[in-house]
Amino acid sequence: MANPRIGIIGAGQLGRMMALAAYPLCIDCRFLDTAQNAPGGQVGPIHVGALDDADALRALAGEVDVLTFDIENVPIEVLEQVAGQVSVYPQPKVLAAAQDRLAEKRLFRELGIPTAAFVPVDDEHDLDRAAQTLGWPIVLKRRRLGYDGRGQRMADDSASLVHGWRELDRAPAIAERWVNFERELSLIGVGGAEGSLRFYPLSENVHADGQLVCTIAPYEDEDLTLTAERWLEKLMRRYDYRGVLTVEFFHTDAGLLANEFAPRVHNSGHWTIEGAQTSQFENHLRAILGWPLGETAPRGHAAMLNLLGELPDRARVLAMRGVHFHDYGKQPRPKRKLGHCTIVDPDRDRLLKRFAPLQALIAETNC
Amino acid sequence: MANPRIGIIGAGQLGRMMALAAYPLCIDCRFLDTAQNAPGGQVGPIHVGALDDADALRALAGEVDVLTFDIENVPIEVLEQVAGQVSVYPQPKVLAAAQDRLAEKRLFRELGIPTAAFVPVDDEHDLDRAAQTLGWPIVLKRRRLGYDGRGQRMADDSASLVHGWRELDRAPAIAERWVNFERELSLIGVGGAEGSLRFYPLSENVHADGQLVCTIAPYEDEDLTLTAERWLEKLMRRYDYRGVLTVEFFHTDAGLLANEFAPRVHNSGHWTIEGAQTSQFENHLRAILGWPLGETAPRGHAAMLNLLGELPDRARVLAMRGVHFHDYGKQPRPKRKLGHCTIVDPDRDRLLKRFAPLQALIAETNC
Repeated sequence: MANPRIGIIGAGQLGRMMALAAYPLCIDCRFLDTAQNAPGGQVGPIHVGALDDADALRALAGEVDVLTFDIENVPIEVLEQVAGQVSVYPQPKVLAAAQDRLAEKRLFRELGIPTAAFVPVDDEHDLDRAAQTLGWPIVLKRRRLGYDGRGQRMADDSASLVHGWRELDRAPAIAERWVNFERELSLIGVGGAEGSLRFYPLSENVHADGQLVCTIAPYEDEDLTLTAERWLEKLMRRYDYRGVLTVEFFHTDAGLLANEFAPRVHNSGHWTIEGAQTSQFENHLRAILGWPLGETAPRGHAAMLNLLGELPDRARVLAMRGVHFHDYGKQPRPKRKLGHCTIVDPDRDRLLKRFAPLQALIAETNC
Repeated sequence: MANPRIGIIGAGQLGRMMALAAYPLCIDCRFLDTAQNAPGGQVGPIHVGALDDADALRALAGEVDVLTFDIENVPIEVLEQVAGQVSVYPQPKVLAAAQDRLAEKRLFRELGIPTAAFVPVDDEHDLDRAAQTLGWPIVLKRRRLGYDGRGQRMADDSASLVHGWRELDRAPAIAERWVNFERELSLIGVGGAEGSLRFYPLSENVHADGQLVCTIAPYEDEDLTLTAERWLEKLMRRYDYRGVLTVEFFHTDAGLLANEFAPRVHNSGHWTIEGAQTSQFENHLRAILGWPLGETAPRGHAAMLNLLGELPDRARVLAMRGVHFHDYGKQPRPKRKLGHCTIVDPDRDRLLKRFAPLQALIAETNC
């Protein structure tokens, strides 16, 4: 029997970890990305081309059974062109909603999923309307192509709001009421064939400058978990969703507010490689191939730390008891995600005690 | 910093799983084996050539920092030729002892490690001597190139002993007293730089027709564990051993008897991928690169089942809760090791209860 073949648009660390989860199952992954030595290209075959190169995408589509992506800025038109040629999961229409913060927020609202108050911004008049509707501070976010805190500006008054919008090149945006949250949580779900659905436990995420620094999971709160699962289920059922889906939440006094969703495997789920019965990467592959989904139960408590900008001394990390080191094979650059480390422990308090020295070591090199 | 590079002689499933453990650490593995589509060749670059092809081996050695092997029948002369060009771990002299059952047994004895009584057999006169010394039944084993029960004959009397020896082409052999054992156990150790040593817990192995069928670990017996660890330590210290080493034992009324050792990662350690803090494959790589060794503590109780001859229906296996499926990408053939499955559970009794339906399913297809 021939191996199932998956084409992955984007060969970043997410695609790389998908391919590594694929090998034990004899699933062949191949990539499309702009550089031969992209993280994924180091572990599997890669087509070198722009992500919006229709010819390159058609060539990849012609070699595989299913197409998926590890990055959100894949042009929908191009994806839809190949959707007749090969299955594309997650479905391009969900990706379209994720690419536009306004469509995303409206979708949440339509499904009864609470979000921060927001106002669409297309011209400077909308800025006034936003100020009147939302009060201060306001977060202005480009509708498209923002990630890891990029394409966002905080504003405390009208002048800084106008200034911020100009800095964002007056691109279509949304103005959001600032949410005073206690913590950020995310929920990762996976949708398979015939309506099968599974959820990983809630994860608690710590960001700095808009970028994920660490995740600790599970965040044990039964009510919040059930609420978040109900919301993800609505979102996934709406699209007959296939693959891994991540929703990020603000946890506030008044409960959860959905911030954004990602129709893909997610940085806040890297802990599942060692910390869950089946990793998010393996489950994404199972889902898009129509295979039975794997168990999502945690294997104890897990803490994941991103390695940003520069890698720490490998020997020092590996010498720490039970630290799992993941190097994505990328060149150092400030704030760039180069790898991550995970620790798993049956006991949460002991996990946090073991995590502290790792954090201290990584703090020396992260930049 | 350039990635460390490891050359693996032999691209079977053991080499394949080494390469898969290497990717997250950005270690580059490349292989030498006789077929492009060998299990390892499906996940990394491969030189196609005979294992005793000195030119091919030199070419591989020239591209890597360390050479290792996933198979024992690598010609020592050829290995020693490249040992000046590149580090070879485990050391060729240990491999030499492992390749010859007589040298292996004598080494055990020399180190004070008990074995079954044995007699070297070089001609038919030695068969008489064996019969007088050992009593019946006797197991006749070729000194070289036997594995998975091949190259062995049981004999109940002189006639069958002579017949068996002729069937083994009168090759140099050893005659062993049959050991009436309760179970087979194995211990896997790993030796790193500067004398660092770690041991996985004892594993219990079930064989059929000389071939490993399943492993359950840890086998919890503190006395036996300490004894086996002491013996492995002697063996490893003798050679300043670098890499993973496996010793198989018979567990008898009188304690442990060493049966054989393998200077490599081992089928009875496949459970460590999901069942231990660090897999035997990752620890082998760390050891031969001189990196700090990873924690060998178990993550609960694990059961590993070999998939022999033919693979089971993948969907049925994946639908079983918490079953990890490993497909080596090999063509079906009776008795051939095509893959394995592992289940991990914090509770041993529950593990065995969950393992039974997996065994039943696999029994339908193993051949």
